Amino acid sequence: MEWEAIESRLNALLENGRHGELRGAMRMLNVVDIAQYMENLDKDKLLLVFRILPKDISADVFSYMAPEQRQTLIESIGDQEIRALMEDMFLDDAVDFLEEMPANVVKRVLQNTTPETRNLINQFLRYPEYSAGSIMTIEFLEFHAGDTVKMAMDTIRRVGLDKETIYTLYIIDSARKLIGTLALRKMILAHEDAVLSDMMQRNPISVYTTDDQEIVADTVRRYDLLAIPVVDKEERLVGIITADDVMDVIEEENTEDFEKMAALTPSEDEYLKTSPFRLALNRIPWLLIMAAVAIFTGMIIKGFEDVLATSIVLTSCIPMLMNTGGNCGSQASTLIIRGIALGEIEFKDWFRALWKEFRVGLMVGVVLFLFTFLLVTLIYGASFTEALVVALALYATVLIAKGLGCTLPLLAKKIGFDPALMASPFITTLVDATSLTIYFMIATTILKIAV
Amino acid sequence: MEWEAIESRLNALLENGRHGELRGAMRMLNVVDIAQYMENLDKDKLLLVFRILPKDISADVFSYMAPEQRQTLIESIGDQEIRALMEDMFLDDAVDFLEEMPANVVKRVLQNTTPETRNLINQFLRYPEYSAGSIMTIEFLEFHAGDTVKMAMDTIRRVGLDKETIYTLYIIDSARKLIGTLALRKMILAHEDAVLSDMMQRNPISVYTTDDQEIVADTVRRYDLLAIPVVDKEERLVGIITADDVMDVIEEENTEDFEKMAALTPSEDEYLKTSPFRLALNRIPWLLIMAAVAIFTGMIIKGFEDVLATSIVLTSCIPMLMNTGGNCGSQASTLIIRGIALGEIEFKDWFRALWKEFRVGLMVGVVLFLFTFLLVTLIYGASFTEALVVALALYATVLIAKGLGCTLPLLAKKIGFDPALMASPFITTLVDATSLTIYFMIATTILKIAV
Repeated sequence: MEWEAIESRLNALLENGRHGELRGAMRMLNVVDIAQYMENLDKDKLLLVFRILPKDISADVFSYMAPEQRQTLIESIGDQEIRALMEDMFLDDAVDFLEEMPANVVKRVLQNTTPETRNLINQFLRYPEYSAGSIMTIEFLEFHAGDTVKMAMDTIRRVGLDKETIYTLYIIDSARKLIGTLALRKMILAHEDAVLSDMMQRNPISVYTTDDQEIVADTVRRYDLLAIPVVDKEERLVGIITADDVMDVIEEENTEDFEKMAALTPSEDEYLKTSPFRLALNRIPWLLIMAAVAIFTGMIIKGFEDVLATSIVLTSCIPMLMNTGGNCGSQASTLIIRGIALGEIEFKDWFRALWKEFRVGLMVGVVLFLFTFLLVTLIYGASFTEALVVALALYATVLIAKGLGCTLPLLAKKIGFDPALMASPFITTLVDATSLTIYFMIATTILKIAV
Repeated sequence: MEWEAIESRLNALLENGRHGELRGAMRMLNVVDIAQYMENLDKDKLLLVFRILPKDISADVFSYMAPEQRQTLIESIGDQEIRALMEDMFLDDAVDFLEEMPANVVKRVLQNTTPETRNLINQFLRYPEYSAGSIMTIEFLEFHAGDTVKMAMDTIRRVGLDKETIYTLYIIDSARKLIGTLALRKMILAHEDAVLSDMMQRNPISVYTTDDQEIVADTVRRYDLLAIPVVDKEERLVGIITADDVMDVIEEENTEDFEKMAALTPSEDEYLKTSPFRLALNRIPWLLIMAAVAIFTGMIIKGFEDVLATSIVLTSCIPMLMNTGGNCGSQASTLIIRGIALGEIEFKDWFRALWKEFRVGLMVGVVLFLFTFLLVTLIYGASFTEALVVALALYATVLIAKGLGCTLPLLAKKIGFDPALMASPFITTLVDATSLTIYFMIATTILKIAV
């Protein structure tokens, strides 16, 4: 059934007050889809539908709702309902939720949680933003090395297993240090008297609570994991991060790179939900910096007034020269930035990359040389000398742009800056100045000889 | 232990011929790390280490090796070894491997597989590239709705469970159609006489073999899945795709977008492993197209020779105007392209986005107007009229750039093109032409009045 059809059927049930049927219909849907359905409801209907929701999935649906709807709901429901909701939510989802709420809402919610949950939440809120600690969940299964399969299975049957726990048993020693992992699939095939330590995988791959989420994503991706344990600085197991959360981290990190590479201050908010004022603020600083640099670049033109006065063709070619130089630079820098992000290129590869870009530049340059020489002659009716100046300047620009494009991201990484900042806008601005200088130097030299 | 230390210890064991110890040492490492260690070995050592590898992990290590090493190995080992390797590899890994090999290697490998495996591989190789069918695995557990927990557990104990199968049971009807899923965690808590159909989740989320891998990634991410079933057009279950493979798809799709957004023909190969000739080929077509457009843009300058002759300030401001216009356009287009990729923005949101960008443009424009008016006056010693022309043209450029930046990606999507093509290089080239035209129109009008 199409989404529109589902939505209108749910709406019909809601409007006709057939709440029992609506509850039944929602049972057939995925919680993600229910949350999406609720996105378009007004405040009263939202509250009504939330109360109609089967109790066992309402915390799950709440976890997938947008921040605005969650705030509306929390402000409408009673303390009793808040308490039930908070106890049913996974701790990591509860923390995510609170991080987006205004202080007064956070206060009211925390007043309605058990002291134990409140302590845990407060501890989570203290982890640095984007750290492994801030995205982990504490719903995992831990066992001791000496436990038998039977003991472990009894524990599992007693506490149950849920979506977050996944299927890995984490094995700790008496100091709570993580010493091994065991896949549930291996355990259920084993004899019930077998001891966990004999089957477990030692030296498990883990991350620290303070590690950046980017390290988490890289590690999980490298080792094809479905969950990764998180330890504190004493190597004690404190949480796990599951693959579904890692996918979100990967997309977040990519969005951040896309934004930085377009000279935007990164923002976590969805575009359509961000105010024009906020968007403008995220864009203005970089625009001002680059406009200032470009104005200084313009000084180069001013300095070569005499040369330009002799030939309008030279002035006409400025856009082509600047544009192509910028494009060549950002082609190289994008590949390098991406290579760094995926862990394929490091600073030690700089010379290899530069040598590669030099050869690419030679080939690209020849093609562009011939192409512009021809086009400038045909379209602008440029003289041989003019066409030669333009084509030569372009060749030099291509080589320099490729060199800067591969060097700057690696250099930025080396000195601790984000390589993504060395993308198109910055490279273009820098290449502009360089290419214009070369252009006028070549023009002055060749035109002097020609005259 | 640091990676360098591990590597040198392994090398020492290898060079001293202590093969038994080397095998033991490798048992302590993750297969991904062993594959990385083998990357730097020459042909003879590579073959030696591969033969020293514990047999139960050699197929796994092989799956993580780089294509060149795999080809070297396959060309060195005997038919018997190829046969063992192919039978031990997961089918999706075997297919990935063969897709990267030259025809003669593929032929030799296929000759050394069982007819059954060969048929399966051939069937996989027929799925369109980047389709769900081409990335799925066939190692999954399927059961019938009427099976009891006891029957299912017996099957699991008999066939075992491995990494790819994960922990979901897929339930099919007599026509092999997928009708439900059941999490292993639910089953192991149930009574052994319970019937699967009573516990299973109906209407499971699935994808078709022909769906693009981007749809797979979006669906898995939306519903926070750890694996997704793949069905053929008759809704029959034919495979599953696991979260670890989806993470790779997400990074691949992002890399493709980064490359398109930098006017590069996308390539799957790692930068450092791609030849300069190949890199040049991927870059030249777009550079030529944009250089040609920029040369036509230059015609605008040629047409306004008279205006420019009256004021070198106006010529000097060309880089700033073009650069800022390009930056404004790519800021907007990047956010829209990213929003489309993440499913947050659709064509129906065009007017909302345009209205937002218009307001952003008004705010950004005011700031840039004042900033450039001031800087041009101070640095170039521009007259009031000149500064006004530049600042006004910039304001108009900002508004147009923001409008084009948000419209073109949505329009591209609507008519079936990839929105990522409407990024910085293309937008910049287009904005250049527009901004120069406006610039000279404003200049002509105002300077005429002023004179």
